[in-house]
Amino acid sequence: HKIALLPGDGIGPEIVPQAVRVLEAVGKKFNLEFQFETALIGGAAYDATGHPLPEATLELCRRSDAILLGAVGGPKWDNLEPDLRPERGALLPLRKELGLYANLRPAAVNPALASASTLKEEIVSGLDIMIIRELTGGLYFGQKHREELPGGGQKAVETLEYSTGEIERVARLGFEMARKRNKRLMSVDKANVLESSRLWREVVQELAKEYPDVELNHMYVDNCAMQLVRNPKQFDVMVTENMFGDILTDLASQLTGSIGMLPSASIGGEVALYEPIHGSAPDIAGKNLANPIATILSAAMMLRVSFGLEEPAASIEGAVAKVLEQGYRTGDIMQPGQKQLGTVEMTEAI
Amino acid sequence: HKIALLPGDGIGPEIVPQAVRVLEAVGKKFNLEFQFETALIGGAAYDATGHPLPEATLELCRRSDAILLGAVGGPKWDNLEPDLRPERGALLPLRKELGLYANLRPAAVNPALASASTLKEEIVSGLDIMIIRELTGGLYFGQKHREELPGGGQKAVETLEYSTGEIERVARLGFEMARKRNKRLMSVDKANVLESSRLWREVVQELAKEYPDVELNHMYVDNCAMQLVRNPKQFDVMVTENMFGDILTDLASQLTGSIGMLPSASIGGEVALYEPIHGSAPDIAGKNLANPIATILSAAMMLRVSFGLEEPAASIEGAVAKVLEQGYRTGDIMQPGQKQLGTVEMTEAI
Ligand SMILES: CC(C)[C@H](C(=O)O)[C@@H](O)C(=O)O
Ligand SMILES: CC(C)[C@H](C(=O)O)[C@@H](O)C(=O)O
Repeated sequence: HKIALLPGDGIGPEIVPQAVRVLEAVGKKFNLEFQFETALIGGAAYDATGHPLPEATLELCRRSDAILLGAVGGPKWDNLEPDLRPERGALLPLRKELGLYANLRPAAVNPALASASTLKEEIVSGLDIMIIRELTGGLYFGQKHREELPGGGQKAVETLEYSTGEIERVARLGFEMARKRNKRLMSVDKANVLESSRLWREVVQELAKEYPDVELNHMYVDNCAMQLVRNPKQFDVMVTENMFGDILTDLASQLTGSIGMLPSASIGGEVALYEPIHGSAPDIAGKNLANPIATILSAAMMLRVSFGLEEPAASIEGAVAKVLEQGYRTGDIMQPGQKQLGTVEMTEAI
Repeated sequence: HKIALLPGDGIGPEIVPQAVRVLEAVGKKFNLEFQFETALIGGAAYDATGHPLPEATLELCRRSDAILLGAVGGPKWDNLEPDLRPERGALLPLRKELGLYANLRPAAVNPALASASTLKEEIVSGLDIMIIRELTGGLYFGQKHREELPGGGQKAVETLEYSTGEIERVARLGFEMARKRNKRLMSVDKANVLESSRLWREVVQELAKEYPDVELNHMYVDNCAMQLVRNPKQFDVMVTENMFGDILTDLASQLTGSIGMLPSASIGGEVALYEPIHGSAPDIAGKNLANPIATILSAAMMLRVSFGLEEPAASIEGAVAKVLEQGYRTGDIMQPGQKQLGTVEMTEAI
């Protein structure tokens, strides 16, 4: 399996190698061979080549079987023009170019860490939801322009567009995922206000006929934000459009209280991309303080989703759970009475 | 003071009269005269006249000094065509027609109710934030259409528009409100992706020069959703565009654990509108079970914001706090060992 490594910025170059070590260990155990090749992305790529997403990086991604990304961005590149900034100049085009139309974001609470949440333990313990966010449509990729107004001032105009096909393919993933889990799908929209949401709902409802075994429900996005706080365990699989998904996935992650633990997958095209959901954390970069677990669990997700290697994936997840049970923690999830480890040492324990 | 009463649907016709009783009591105490006139809105108006926002209702609003709304909507009207549904056919046009461009949504935790939140008590006790949501622009009032696609299927297209003037007037309210409170304003946008957010940020930054005493910060909406869960007390006044505000205000309300307590004001035009943030709760309508406090506190907000009557407003708020301290509760906020009251009895206690 050829894996493209895109460490990126901040703690990215620290955590990606840790996931590689875990993949190598699991490779030995299960007799699998991984080939790794590294490329630049984000601020690091901008510094070296003048662009946050060099052609060579895209090319490597295209001829790999899967991609493991660290994180991009940092204050150093915040004042570049928007299209050269790591987030907008690299992440968004990467998603579009590779056709990664669905972002899979599990928000699950590890039993050892339920008390780390700002929510009461009984509200979040055992939480296990999967949010599927549409990733290559909507406001993110609409037309955008400015107009000068006759009386002075300006007007910004941008479009939110969705087609039947764009909605259907991501909704289908939602139904398939629900089938593999608890057979409940919540589609989130704002159909009482948005035309694109009305089309979204129509398409999802039509598709539901193919999945009579899945219980489909619809919820408005504002109510959904409330319900995630009120009673998150009511959800199983959720599917929503790009901008709502951006907000709701971050909200859901925070419910777990330990975003340093959460992996993600972006799928849909020929090759899928895996990354921790946390950012590049420039403040702790280079200090052996970063939590490598989200990246390690992203590698496990890669094994399961891209390579169909269920047992090796479960073996990584089991190792992570065990190490946490044994009381090992990185700084971000440290609790009284537990043993604090650095990035490298946590990986060794796993 | 001429007050238009729009009870609406569900529990609306139960709670609005309770707020009227409180206003009459406070009128007696402070020697104020209120004139009340009632009109139909929402499903009740549709049933009686064929439209959820009859001309007579708009006309009453225009010649009143303030409006007190209960709630609109219910399953009975959910299958009408969108423009006749209570929410879209009455609420949105009412906002637009009356020029109510700013929605003020306090999310404050009453000390007696801090334990009702799903968040840990130390995270929310003492919480007191004010969110200002732009209410007559953005995706809500953009152009919307459908296209048939050549290969089959459809495309929905809608626009998100904001002008300098629309942003400036609501941002100004944010700065003014921050000045009256703790002098900190958080502007929430998605400037790393949206053109309208970039204009938003430019306009807010420019306006900040007039308010050197207010500390202005910017936050992306996805991060803001996380921060509201992680540490909501970091915020004082927040200002954001219509759709983000729809999501964030509901999220913030839920943090308090008692949305039956939260009032709101929609201001900007000649006359302002006050309403509880909760819905019409058709399931408990007509049973003397509804919590009238959000509506009563909306009336207090009216006294303060529309009429400048600080002392009478504070007197209502004080009465509510005292009744809660004494252990009186409606069903929605009932806690072990407290005394449960009905809608009417709770109002009497207040
Ligand atoms: C950095 C930003 C453009 C990006 C997004 O909004 O998609 C990020 O928030 C994410 O969720 O991956
Ligand atoms: C009912 C709906 C159209 C409305 C909105 O989205 O503005 C509601 O959610 C609100 O916040 O007042």
